[in-house]
Amino acid sequence: LTVKKGTNFPLELLVELERGGRRSLRSQLEDALREAVRLGRISAGERLPATRALAADLGVSRRMVVDAYAQLLAEGYLVARGGAGTYVADGAAVAPSAPAAQEPARPLAFDFFPGFPDLASFPRRDWLRALREVLREAPLASLGYPDTRGAPELRRALAGHLRRLRGVSADPQAIVVCSGFAQALMLLARALGGGALSGNALGSSAPGGADAGCHLALEDPGLPPHRAILAAHGARLSFIPVDERGAAVEELGAIAARAGRIDGALVTPAHQSPTGVALAAERRTALLEWAAQDGGLVLEDDYDAEYRYDRQPLAALQGLAPDRVVYLGTVSKTLAPALRLGWMVLPPRLVDAVAEQAFLAGSTLPTLDQLTLARLLDGGGYDRHLRQARRRYRARRDALVRAVAEHLPGARVTGVAAGLHAIVALGRAVDAQSLVRAAREHGVGVYPLGYAFASPRAEHEGLVLGYANLSEPAIAEGIRRLARALTEV
Amino acid sequence: LTVKKGTNFPLELLVELERGGRRSLRSQLEDALREAVRLGRISAGERLPATRALAADLGVSRRMVVDAYAQLLAEGYLVARGGAGTYVADGAAVAPSAPAAQEPARPLAFDFFPGFPDLASFPRRDWLRALREVLREAPLASLGYPDTRGAPELRRALAGHLRRLRGVSADPQAIVVCSGFAQALMLLARALGGGALSGNALGSSAPGGADAGCHLALEDPGLPPHRAILAAHGARLSFIPVDERGAAVEELGAIAARAGRIDGALVTPAHQSPTGVALAAERRTALLEWAAQDGGLVLEDDYDAEYRYDRQPLAALQGLAPDRVVYLGTVSKTLAPALRLGWMVLPPRLVDAVAEQAFLAGSTLPTLDQLTLARLLDGGGYDRHLRQARRRYRARRDALVRAVAEHLPGARVTGVAAGLHAIVALGRAVDAQSLVRAAREHGVGVYPLGYAFASPRAEHEGLVLGYANLSEPAIAEGIRRLARALTEV
Repeated sequence: LTVKKGTNFPLELLVELERGGRRSLRSQLEDALREAVRLGRISAGERLPATRALAADLGVSRRMVVDAYAQLLAEGYLVARGGAGTYVADGAAVAPSAPAAQEPARPLAFDFFPGFPDLASFPRRDWLRALREVLREAPLASLGYPDTRGAPELRRALAGHLRRLRGVSADPQAIVVCSGFAQALMLLARALGGGALSGNALGSSAPGGADAGCHLALEDPGLPPHRAILAAHGARLSFIPVDERGAAVEELGAIAARAGRIDGALVTPAHQSPTGVALAAERRTALLEWAAQDGGLVLEDDYDAEYRYDRQPLAALQGLAPDRVVYLGTVSKTLAPALRLGWMVLPPRLVDAVAEQAFLAGSTLPTLDQLTLARLLDGGGYDRHLRQARRRYRARRDALVRAVAEHLPGARVTGVAAGLHAIVALGRAVDAQSLVRAAREHGVGVYPLGYAFASPRAEHEGLVLGYANLSEPAIAEGIRRLARALTEV
Repeated sequence: LTVKKGTNFPLELLVELERGGRRSLRSQLEDALREAVRLGRISAGERLPATRALAADLGVSRRMVVDAYAQLLAEGYLVARGGAGTYVADGAAVAPSAPAAQEPARPLAFDFFPGFPDLASFPRRDWLRALREVLREAPLASLGYPDTRGAPELRRALAGHLRRLRGVSADPQAIVVCSGFAQALMLLARALGGGALSGNALGSSAPGGADAGCHLALEDPGLPPHRAILAAHGARLSFIPVDERGAAVEELGAIAARAGRIDGALVTPAHQSPTGVALAAERRTALLEWAAQDGGLVLEDDYDAEYRYDRQPLAALQGLAPDRVVYLGTVSKTLAPALRLGWMVLPPRLVDAVAEQAFLAGSTLPTLDQLTLARLLDGGGYDRHLRQARRRYRARRDALVRAVAEHLPGARVTGVAAGLHAIVALGRAVDAQSLVRAAREHGVGVYPLGYAFASPRAEHEGLVLGYANLSEPAIAEGIRRLARALTEV
């Protein structure tokens, strides 16, 4: 960013935004505006250009200019005069240069968002190299419309990978590639709602697809967006309580009796989302027995099973009952959510119905990305990345456990045998909204467990803290600040 | 592909598939099987391995092995003995090596599929270079979960591009990036069905989203998948007839009266899909007047408007009524369908409802792809590619017109002022199915116009022929063969 010299210059000439750099355009814009006011380059009482005009001149969105003006209004650099526009505030010029700390810390310095792997270690070079090979060798047909079920090369590579890593019984023909777990939920809700379970998905589904509606049992707590997505696509929902042995699947019979019928149970056996407990052995068995007896489907969300630290992972449930289990995974926790690639391993009778819904939703995936991932899987780069990540995350998990012991003496950490997040039980219920706000003031992002319940709890002692995307020192400092924030709640 | 030496060797040792090469695994597999039988490496009467076992050993899908066996059964290399397995046929060994022409020509040598640009000229190098820059410079946050509306960088780049190229009035905040036209249709059907038009999309939409259902008017003929997608997501459909001046939009009032209400009209003003006519000037005006008076929405499918050969293109309708028109485009006809990137420019009141549906459908797009396209747009590579493509396609169009004049004397070519396909009226109605089959025998893929009607017509004189993905000599030879096929129908 440079601010050109001159006084009372048109504002758009004072702002030069650096595209594609490390800093967001908005923060560059706000800095430039502040500096222009501070240094008197636009004078006190001078009217600022209309947001639309400035946005057009700068080639940024109007929303960004509106937000930047609002920010500087709040900060006192600018004043609004009714409907008459925005002006430079009296006294704002030649103000002492404000230190950075006084500006509101919008991007959180210590964000314990549970959904991220370590974004900095995304294997940019490997990805680029794999794409280069794909572009050199891929046949022309791979530039046409993709296979609705996913590129055959990727389905084959995934079948081998999932067999080796997770004991999944995976025929490439039973795999449907999708953009992630959310899309998988939509496709399944619609396919099951259209009668796929009774084997007549293509013939009898009503126009509208999801009109019939399926009924699914979900773990409680779970992730609210998943509930919203399923409900939006016609699924009715019941809930399975979760305790320290995982989902209480022995209640599925009673739940089904109340609901009339349950088409499937969505579970996270390896590492319950979000509580982090593993499904107990006898419950794994009970779940598959329920599926066999009641004819229900198990939707096995294996979202972070690549990471287990203290003992060998159990294989996926799917390997024990491939005709009764839909296995679900993504690269969001292994490579990056931005790639938007995931997969379903389906009982063969469901493949056509799910693929039909993918077609009807226009949800085929970019072929080059799929072939690139297939190369990474086949060439060993993916496994190598996982091995490195596992070491890194174990150290970060340990750092979190240490930091909580040091800074939050009454608190207890659970759910850390696997995955990328921990549950921190604070030892006393706190008001979620106040804590989130107080932590944010200290630059810390925290995620209350109370929000994850089907009936959200405003007060709860639990926090869901992701540690994979923070360095060990950042984890320590983040927990230290969280402890300080807690004294204010 | 190599076939290892030896006689009566286990079949899996005779087959070595070359991955990622130019030839499909299936055709390699079939060749290897044929050769093993021909050369006596597996003997007459010998039983072939079970498909599942061979598939596992070769690391290919069982489906592929089943298909390959079926192919060789049909060809007589193999025989089936009831449920007892598949055997090498007597007399198949040491058969004279069959020339390639005797094998069924599965991949069409002359495929006039209308949906493709020239896949061979996809700018692989430019794409790779742009991605390299993206990977070098993109901030970490761009590896996290993408913005549901699309990467801001891409929306900004698209806004500029669409403004310059198509006169689209595009605020980046009004753009939602999507995977293509099919996904856009799903999102719009659901958003409009949820009450977005009446301005209460977020508040009042019923669980299920599309339950309320919208009513859209579509051009007839049009593309059958579009009708299926809209219907699957709750839209009711009416049809606007198409004549030589485009869609008869003056009938929209009557159509709306019959339907009770019409929320929108989906049209292809620049180059009607598939007839290729342009919407006449007075109908453009009438369409916008209908939208203004009836409060309906115009969905402007600008699918191939980058290509106009004989005169300056008209700007998009959207620029005249951005509050009433949804503008839709993709890179499928400019770069490659495999990229799965498209866009909607929406009236501001629709943005939130469409973005909400994108969230509920898990249909966010890969960020790296979006940023790569943004680079290509900003850096001029996209425009350069379009200029080259325009020259290439004009020459191919001319080759098609010449070839039809030479080989199909009674036929008439229309719809070729723009786009990537032509309508060839043969001068007599032919049975679509017979013609497709006969043409396929000659290695030619043709697409009957009769299939594009809401009530498909088995007999029709029209063919929809795409010419962009065939060289000029291939176009000439394809039409010559089509003429021969026509003598057999």
